Amino acid sequence: MILAAHGSRLKSSNEEVTQLAAKLGDQLTSQFAQVEPAFLELSPPSIEQAIATCVAAGHHHITVVPYFLAAGRHVKDDVPAIVEQARQQYPDVDIELTQHLGLSDGLVSAVTGLLDSNN
Amino acid sequence: MILAAHGSRLKSSNEEVTQLAAKLGDQLTSQFAQVEPAFLELSPPSIEQAIATCVAAGHHHITVVPYFLAAGRHVKDDVPAIVEQARQQYPDVDIELTQHLGLSDGLVSAVTGLLDSNN
Repeated sequence: MILAAHGSRLKSSNEEVTQLAAKLGDQLTSQFAQVEPAFLELSPPSIEQAIATCVAAGHHHITVVPYFLAAGRHVKDDVPAIVEQARQQYPDVDIELTQHLGLSDGLVSAVTGLLDSNN
Repeated sequence: MILAAHGSRLKSSNEEVTQLAAKLGDQLTSQFAQVEPAFLELSPPSIEQAIATCVAAGHHHITVVPYFLAAGRHVKDDVPAIVEQARQQYPDVDIELTQHLGLSDGLVSAVTGLLDSNN
């Protein structure tokens, strides 16, 4: 799985994404052999690089998760264009693109979890 | 509760936040009398306006949830400054500021939920 975030000039902000990818990798071992962070802008690795990493590791099924709260231009155009280009580049690899994080039903409990941890 | 998002030029993107606020309002009736969406930039209502709405509704405890994935300048400086200013403006109202969404343990299951809904 590739956790595809926007990317920030702030190293600490990108680090949060990297840490979440590591946590997902630990928890989803039955579903994914590998979970890689990637950034659309402002920080390596790019989504293209992360896909290349997964292909080089021998994976034939890659799931790209757009780690964005809102469906702006990046979610609607930029990430799908990168995935489409990668599909053409690696015709033997099945590259799936999920909905963006903002549409997850789990966000309600993610907000709730924030409240609990605050008390 | 005020769900404080960045705000987008895209109406549909702000609408996603408004819908999540409505969903949270429905599900958290035991904890919150009211859940209001608010935007730091680019769309009304502002966070200041949402706080004023809650105060006008007679609430004495307001929880502001920064609906941001990463702790950039907005999370570190802008939202806290707005909350601090509001605390001074409404000394009788207890205004709490939670951690930002990106730190919620629930994000792991939010991503997982995305995978499930995709299959």
